Amino acid sequence: MSTVAEHYPIDCPFCNIANAYLPDPASPIPSSPDPAKVDPQCHLILSTPYVLGFLDILPIAPGHILLTTRRHYRTLIDLHKATSTTAQDWASRRAAEESLETSRALGEWLPRVSQALCKVTGIEDWNVVQNNGERAAQVVPHIHFHLIPRYQEGRRENAGKGKVDVGMLKSWRMFGRGAREELDDEEGAEIAAELREALQEVIQGTESVGPKL
Amino acid sequence: MSTVAEHYPIDCPFCNIANAYLPDPASPIPSSPDPAKVDPQCHLILSTPYVLGFLDILPIAPGHILLTTRRHYRTLIDLHKATSTTAQDWASRRAAEESLETSRALGEWLPRVSQALCKVTGIEDWNVVQNNGERAAQVVPHIHFHLIPRYQEGRRENAGKGKVDVGMLKSWRMFGRGAREELDDEEGAEIAAELREALQEVIQGTESVGPKL
Ligand SMILES: [Zn+2]
Ligand SMILES: [Zn+2]
Repeated sequence: MSTVAEHYPIDCPFCNIANAYLPDPASPIPSSPDPAKVDPQCHLILSTPYVLGFLDILPIAPGHILLTTRRHYRTLIDLHKATSTTAQDWASRRAAEESLETSRALGEWLPRVSQALCKVTGIEDWNVVQNNGERAAQVVPHIHFHLIPRYQEGRRENAGKGKVDVGMLKSWRMFGRGAREELDDEEGAEIAAELREALQEVIQGTESVGPKL
Repeated sequence: MSTVAEHYPIDCPFCNIANAYLPDPASPIPSSPDPAKVDPQCHLILSTPYVLGFLDILPIAPGHILLTTRRHYRTLIDLHKATSTTAQDWASRRAAEESLETSRALGEWLPRVSQALCKVTGIEDWNVVQNNGERAAQVVPHIHFHLIPRYQEGRRENAGKGKVDVGMLKSWRMFGRGAREELDDEEGAEIAAELREALQEVIQGTESVGPKL
């Protein structure tokens, strides 16, 4: 069986976030999470038993969101392997089911978070990118999907202070740390609050068919 | 309500593929699908009631796979909207549930298809990319996730004939048609057969917790 240290590697920044922001059984959208619970600050928008969403601290464009798993998996292969078990004991089967639920939750939340992103930023074009392994430009070794808005030329000012050059998107340098500017915490808190409000509306609109997790 | 023409726009190549390859209730992995059912040929690896997987006909690297939805949604926003309904009639609720199942199926199959891709190509690094809107480099207006292997320099020959320059991955030109070479049908058929075999193993490994769809 896996150990606690495997689930929450001490050096993994996304595991730190997952540990700092436990899921609230009342709602997947945290009401007013304290960004300073972790360092650097985390601008959280989503926290379920399976996935978390927050702003990238090195945004490629204003509103750049990460959707990640609550449990530590390095890549989609690790997630896949965690869904397979030949063991028949309760704990093994429970862990496999949790991993399968995690993969489904990623699929469920990508459209919802996209909807909130488009509403808040006013964009209609965006990329979803998930990198596996160093050669694929993965930096944090814990599964995460980037949601990256593509602003129309000259329309960047519609979202936040628009400090980041969206032209960078044209190059794979986009995933390098050097070329990106740090998220301003005040700006991050503002955008995250708007995203949580938009996600709340998304949840209400889908409650007739969707689970609340 | 939506019409058949909205579900299957006549000009959408992925709707053509979805119509040509109906799901087999016996297995999500087609046993020996005829690539010539559509033009250009389709090298199918997965066909469920909700999602399909096949080789990109303009691969960025050998083994480049697309995972798409059976139903026509242009972007993740369209998929999200299709999950929300305030209508209480059976048909509306059924359509919303189908859309929610589709988003879950995308999440479930990304790790499984990744596993098959890594096994067949021998790679350990790959990108998952899903583009929404023209400004985000979306070409076919029907949701699809690219699974793009990143080969080690000099190891391309391990997978197929390696005609495609993987250095192209370094640039966003990767999504332009001009810079990509057409998939050879014979090579495509070979890779697809290997991928189907690998996916079959993936399915067998997860059958204790995963559904077969
Ligand atoms: Zn982690
Ligand atoms: Zn279509």
